[in-house]
Amino acid sequence: MTKRIQQFLNEQKPATPCVVIDLDVIKNNYGSMRTHLPLAQVFYAVKANPAPEVVNLLVNEGSSFDVASVPEVDLCLSQGANPDNISFGNTIKKEPHIAYAYSKGIRLFAFDSEEELLKISRAAPGSKVYCRILVENEGAQWPLSRKFGCEVEMAEDLLCQARELGLVPYGVSFHVGSQQTDLSQWDVAMTRVASLFMTLQERGIELTAINLGGGFPAHYIEHVEEMPAYADAVMRAIVGHFGNRLPKLMIEPGRSMVGDSGVLQAEVVLVSRKSNDDCKRWVYLDAGKFNGLAETLDEAITYRVTTSRDGEETEPVILAGPTCDSVDVIYEKKEYSLPLGLKAGDLVQFHSTGAYTTSYASVNFNGFEPIKAYCI
Amino acid sequence: MTKRIQQFLNEQKPATPCVVIDLDVIKNNYGSMRTHLPLAQVFYAVKANPAPEVVNLLVNEGSSFDVASVPEVDLCLSQGANPDNISFGNTIKKEPHIAYAYSKGIRLFAFDSEEELLKISRAAPGSKVYCRILVENEGAQWPLSRKFGCEVEMAEDLLCQARELGLVPYGVSFHVGSQQTDLSQWDVAMTRVASLFMTLQERGIELTAINLGGGFPAHYIEHVEEMPAYADAVMRAIVGHFGNRLPKLMIEPGRSMVGDSGVLQAEVVLVSRKSNDDCKRWVYLDAGKFNGLAETLDEAITYRVTTSRDGEETEPVILAGPTCDSVDVIYEKKEYSLPLGLKAGDLVQFHSTGAYTTSYASVNFNGFEPIKAYCI
Repeated sequence: MTKRIQQFLNEQKPATPCVVIDLDVIKNNYGSMRTHLPLAQVFYAVKANPAPEVVNLLVNEGSSFDVASVPEVDLCLSQGANPDNISFGNTIKKEPHIAYAYSKGIRLFAFDSEEELLKISRAAPGSKVYCRILVENEGAQWPLSRKFGCEVEMAEDLLCQARELGLVPYGVSFHVGSQQTDLSQWDVAMTRVASLFMTLQERGIELTAINLGGGFPAHYIEHVEEMPAYADAVMRAIVGHFGNRLPKLMIEPGRSMVGDSGVLQAEVVLVSRKSNDDCKRWVYLDAGKFNGLAETLDEAITYRVTTSRDGEETEPVILAGPTCDSVDVIYEKKEYSLPLGLKAGDLVQFHSTGAYTTSYASVNFNGFEPIKAYCI
Repeated sequence: MTKRIQQFLNEQKPATPCVVIDLDVIKNNYGSMRTHLPLAQVFYAVKANPAPEVVNLLVNEGSSFDVASVPEVDLCLSQGANPDNISFGNTIKKEPHIAYAYSKGIRLFAFDSEEELLKISRAAPGSKVYCRILVENEGAQWPLSRKFGCEVEMAEDLLCQARELGLVPYGVSFHVGSQQTDLSQWDVAMTRVASLFMTLQERGIELTAINLGGGFPAHYIEHVEEMPAYADAVMRAIVGHFGNRLPKLMIEPGRSMVGDSGVLQAEVVLVSRKSNDDCKRWVYLDAGKFNGLAETLDEAITYRVTTSRDGEETEPVILAGPTCDSVDVIYEKKEYSLPLGLKAGDLVQFHSTGAYTTSYASVNFNGFEPIKAYCI
């Protein structure tokens, strides 16, 4: 926890549950990405944390933006982003939404299918388009389904078709999976990308850019390599396949940009056992899967947890949220050991909760309000 | 789809995605429960659909209410519910929230642990309390975890302690699991309940009520028995164990009260294949797991689906939502076969979506608004 967040929690004592975002951490992360991957243009994945303060900070730092929807377009523009620095990265867009973005000056669009390409050609004529291809997600803690991307052979045909439709076949994108811990995955993906660049060259198309997507990690319980190691792996993969004729590089960090900037503070509502000889306590908090901790689904993301009683003797617990939904169990398989003295009213912190927490919260499930966020 | 919903969709052509709730269906369901289980007091589980119009209708019909939180208390009171007809059924409550409900006249509280009992004794002195016990959930399509309830032996001790604390040991509750399809499960549960009634009698405590919880179904793809069959199973189980000295009965229908009242209408955003020889199309809609279809998580609930092209030749599809999150796939394992002609702009309806849809929606994940609801 940063000193600034610590101080804010101590002095303001905000009502729980809440997320506190330290904007300085995001500023540092942006700087670190620029330092270690100087060749890459950074498109912040707004969906990770769409707080206006976060977008505003990154506009001022010079970042570009990857948006998923019209409201995210409007958000970036309202915070001063230049439409030239916005990529409409969702491969699933309604045609009127493409037209809207185009009317606002956006000229860079993702696609992975013929129907989407036709929509873009009609609603955003002459724009640059990049095709997302399918790659494996081995090693990712939040692996992706086959929902996005198409096979390389199809991408080749579609990028040729893009040219015929008067669009600019700009590049290729892929995503190695969120919170990717296997650094060799970028090389695996780059093999496909390089072969696609080559076959398209044979068909008279020079692609300009590779969009490396996201996948860089935040710091949860499991050890991860730091940004320089990821940057090395990425650059080695690219240079290995492209030598010194490097394409433009785009990255779309979300989790790695904002994840470590946040602390979610919750209050213990109840500590109980299910029987007189139950060896594991249940610790129920006022935050759960439906108001901030959605990524604990299937215990995929394991946050670091601290409490106001750290230092006291601990025992294993099951952590659960406050709703009447039995799915709202935070950690049951993953063993968390918390102080024996923990009781209603005590405070619990989930660290590195700056990404995919606030905007994931439900409107009012069980009557509980969405979680409050403070950007400091 | 009811005629009223059909007419509303045809005439109003509301923007998608949206849920349309036919209040007449809910009125009929309430009537049917009263007819088939005349001995049971109906506590509508507000969390299933907290639309004020739904609560208001049920107040007028004479229903009681099962609430999960202070906002749900306020909602019921604002719609005219009598505090005597409200049960605070969440076993995880902050003490100030218990005190608030008590100050509003609520005198019936659930618990399943000593700490909760102590909170209730301090914040709601003299109230009636019922203890939730753990039962098996075999046969349930949305089975519950061990999150709620305690073992029978602990319940026995806690109900004795309740009396010592000046509370009224009112009864026992259990939940056989949501969308329970095995009717014998009520008998299994009742065996535990009856033994608890007996042992407490030996300790000088006469419990008043059994809260049978929910578990009655809505109509999804799988065949389910109708309300009379459930009512029969429940009454047979109770009479089998209690003879003609029947305790008071409470039921907490949520899904079975409102599920069948709703139709969620979505629009096709994109239809694509991942490769030129892909045998399954991907159909992307403007509704998904984060804006209305949360219960398709792990494909637990399989809604009936119709389209504006029904009657045309069909082929298997994968159904997915509009966000950039790869988890946002609606149905992939469960085979849905939809018209071959389906394309962007066509309409798709998910039936029996009156429960656990609107309030589950995320605040603004990926920038997408929560789903709109219309009660007619």
